[in-house]
Amino acid sequence: MAYDAIETPYEKVDRILGGAATYIALAASKFNHQCGLVSVIGEDFEDSDLAKLTDLGINADGVEKVKGGKTFFWSGRYHDDMNTRTTLDTQLNVLENFSPKVPEAFQDSEVVVIGNLHPAVQKMALDQLTNANGFTLLDSMNFWMEHFREILDEVIAKVNLISINDEEARILTGEFSLPKAAEKIHAMGPKYVIIKKGEHGAQLYGEGKVFIAPAFPIDQVVDPTGAGDSFAGGLAGFLAQAEEINFETIKQALVVGSVFASFTVEAFGVNAIEAVDGKTLQERILAFRELTNFAWNDKTLSL
Amino acid sequence: MAYDAIETPYEKVDRILGGAATYIALAASKFNHQCGLVSVIGEDFEDSDLAKLTDLGINADGVEKVKGGKTFFWSGRYHDDMNTRTTLDTQLNVLENFSPKVPEAFQDSEVVVIGNLHPAVQKMALDQLTNANGFTLLDSMNFWMEHFREILDEVIAKVNLISINDEEARILTGEFSLPKAAEKIHAMGPKYVIIKKGEHGAQLYGEGKVFIAPAFPIDQVVDPTGAGDSFAGGLAGFLAQAEEINFETIKQALVVGSVFASFTVEAFGVNAIEAVDGKTLQERILAFRELTNFAWNDKTLSL
Repeated sequence: MAYDAIETPYEKVDRILGGAATYIALAASKFNHQCGLVSVIGEDFEDSDLAKLTDLGINADGVEKVKGGKTFFWSGRYHDDMNTRTTLDTQLNVLENFSPKVPEAFQDSEVVVIGNLHPAVQKMALDQLTNANGFTLLDSMNFWMEHFREILDEVIAKVNLISINDEEARILTGEFSLPKAAEKIHAMGPKYVIIKKGEHGAQLYGEGKVFIAPAFPIDQVVDPTGAGDSFAGGLAGFLAQAEEINFETIKQALVVGSVFASFTVEAFGVNAIEAVDGKTLQERILAFRELTNFAWNDKTLSL
Repeated sequence: MAYDAIETPYEKVDRILGGAATYIALAASKFNHQCGLVSVIGEDFEDSDLAKLTDLGINADGVEKVKGGKTFFWSGRYHDDMNTRTTLDTQLNVLENFSPKVPEAFQDSEVVVIGNLHPAVQKMALDQLTNANGFTLLDSMNFWMEHFREILDEVIAKVNLISINDEEARILTGEFSLPKAAEKIHAMGPKYVIIKKGEHGAQLYGEGKVFIAPAFPIDQVVDPTGAGDSFAGGLAGFLAQAEEINFETIKQALVVGSVFASFTVEAFGVNAIEAVDGKTLQERILAFRELTNFAWNDKTLSL
């Protein structure tokens, strides 16, 4: 959980609610199941910001407030293409010594998202989980891949699904071809691999099958922050309410995640994702279907 | 129609059959309809190469053989990513003074592809068409957009569909956003706009709707030459056998075109596209559907 200062070519904000855990929880909380959050905040964290989460039914018992500590702070500037960004400032603050404590009530969760953090911290959280049939989804990034590969490999070996971008998949495997990269990642542990390609959509690999979905086209991207996190949160939230978790339902979950990401970027910070309700969600999923599905039957082709 | 010399990081060929018209005709000829070709060749053009086309039922009455002339020659080298290439040599030869003569039997064609050439030459061909309800598909490229904009605009105003890549759409309109670029191109004339994004697939805009399809994933790209041309040929060939031409059938046609492009890149030159038959085509279209379609009904979401 974080406070973010964000600049885009059009607007600038100084200190708004952010952080991977915040976006993940907000997206995941939109579905019909219990949703719990494990994170760390400082004394400066506003009660009203925590209420934004708990008001949506998110159990924040796992959010540790460090006395005298300061909340993680990130500041970045998006370039004209809204696709690339420069990090201006990162203050780890309370995140520096974060040792996640998963409340007992959360330990046997059916679906768990391990957010993008130092793999040693990710491992601490994973080690507290007790549900042998639980489904775990991992996020990571190039920095951990380049500098903490050994411990990251241990974490990767334990999870069911990894969700990373194309550049990260290439760094992790040394393969330029994404199908080949996915194959190598399967061999490292995860049965399912999602490779995100930003504006070009995302791909799912697993059970010897592939699924490719575009990004939902947005007229005006306002703030890309949190898109990947709400993708993961929406994906996990959907899976937690699915009857089964298999390639077919993960396909659907990937679409749901993409739709959450598309909402997120339409407003600054968590504003858009906070406001998503069942109707807007359902509508955009059906629009997504129109965008990608095509009719085909035995008579379509005359050769 | 051309002879190509092609280098990839893996292989090199000196002089093989190529050219946009060749790839377009080969792909378009795979469907249940008459297919005619208008182009120009030199005296050096091998009878056996022309037979590759006529043996597939392509009417080559519109292919002019220039006495003492030499066939268009192109030579290029693909880089390691197989996505970018350097042109090493271009010899226009008989193409320099090409004045297309559309045989009377072709003039009222239902579907016409205007291949990528000088827009003044494209206009000469267009002006010979007599079918007011005919459907015309235009290809072009950055060079014509930058240097022959006025005449190109005249051509664009006359066609029903334009098929260009994302960079070209941006050059043509000055818009970075592809939906906005498509909107501007609609205003120039074409009711339907296809924007190709190479390995990231293609988008169709028209009738206020959007369709997005991925590129069919290929394990090993052998030679990307002709991918865009066989895309256009497959697309047009499919439309010529469709009961109606509308957004829904152009969606299907875009998928068929993508599948043709995917075959083309699996072998050098026209080798793969020549060999495509109904069974392999149908199989890959169904695989394409698996790749992009997902199930969804009223009960999928529990909020």
